[in-house]
Amino acid sequence: MNIEFWFDYASTYSYPAAMRIESVAADNNVSIVWRPFLLGAVFNKQGMNDSPFNVYPAKGEYMWKDMARICSDSNLPFSRPKTFPQHGLLAARVTTRFSDAPWIPKFVRLVYSANFEHNQDISSPSVIEPCLSAVGADVSLVMREAVTEEAKLMLREQTEEAISRGIFGAPSFYVGSELFWGNDRLERAIKWAVEANI
Amino acid sequence: MNIEFWFDYASTYSYPAAMRIESVAADNNVSIVWRPFLLGAVFNKQGMNDSPFNVYPAKGEYMWKDMARICSDSNLPFSRPKTFPQHGLLAARVTTRFSDAPWIPKFVRLVYSANFEHNQDISSPSVIEPCLSAVGADVSLVMREAVTEEAKLMLREQTEEAISRGIFGAPSFYVGSELFWGNDRLERAIKWAVEANI
Repeated sequence: MNIEFWFDYASTYSYPAAMRIESVAADNNVSIVWRPFLLGAVFNKQGMNDSPFNVYPAKGEYMWKDMARICSDSNLPFSRPKTFPQHGLLAARVTTRFSDAPWIPKFVRLVYSANFEHNQDISSPSVIEPCLSAVGADVSLVMREAVTEEAKLMLREQTEEAISRGIFGAPSFYVGSELFWGNDRLERAIKWAVEANI
Repeated sequence: MNIEFWFDYASTYSYPAAMRIESVAADNNVSIVWRPFLLGAVFNKQGMNDSPFNVYPAKGEYMWKDMARICSDSNLPFSRPKTFPQHGLLAARVTTRFSDAPWIPKFVRLVYSANFEHNQDISSPSVIEPCLSAVGADVSLVMREAVTEEAKLMLREQTEEAISRGIFGAPSFYVGSELFWGNDRLERAIKWAVEANI
């Protein structure tokens, strides 16, 4: 059984989802397919050139309070990033290019912590390299591979796939052909995978 | 302890919230303040002249599937309305004008069932009058009062209050000064009321 986890490193609600998906999935013998994409491109297709949380200030103000409550409720550190949304392109390219590497789950969490706990600039190699080093990856190899045309193309194609499959926000989960949207739907998606034996 | 329930009769996710709020609140000794408003006016302020579920088709397509899952999971009948969004103005005026009447909770549920179970036109007096009759209200009095200038003004002011207090969608819940958005947040809002003893 498996679940596709579609996420964007800048996305606020992807943070709690990323921090807990491994344990929720493991508890149910569901494996995870890590599928980063560029949410900004999805918003562009919808005619927005910024996060809806910035386009609609009331929605944004609520989201930050809701995030603080969610993180507090689940004992997850949270600090509102000075820049929102951050640029997750580099981290997303690394993750797409090495999606099957054993260090990916831990790397994903470290990047989210850098963004939403430590308020670091995740577009900077000086932030991403220590994350790679901490998970035991070959830092120089990964950083070199992440900026190849092949890696760039992989992420573009993955983002196109998200759009063509009807993904409109993050985090999203696909279980077979069934789409679930939002951190709130993680448990329902996992249950779907178990019941449908997908 | 009490919770303000802000809802719109056309709003899909307000339907499951409306159908279960009384029992969830009663289980926790929390009382409900019924606060209908016009979500369309809120969207207008955001620059949209239709529901976001129509403006963004991918979001809309997902919402209908998500609604079907939610209703199925909670044994709630659900039939996608032929018209979306419906015009809830008449029902909202009735509810605003008689918000303290003992028959309001049951009336609210009947109108939501008319919309999302029976696919009836809730803008029509021929649908609203039987709902009033079924809950034992004085039908002719209520229908007369619902279209007075006073009733119209009450609903306009309530909608303005929603906007000024940062409500951007429905259902929303206010517990003291704390805002919660979405059917998914009902339990958290009730818990807040209990813990804060509001």
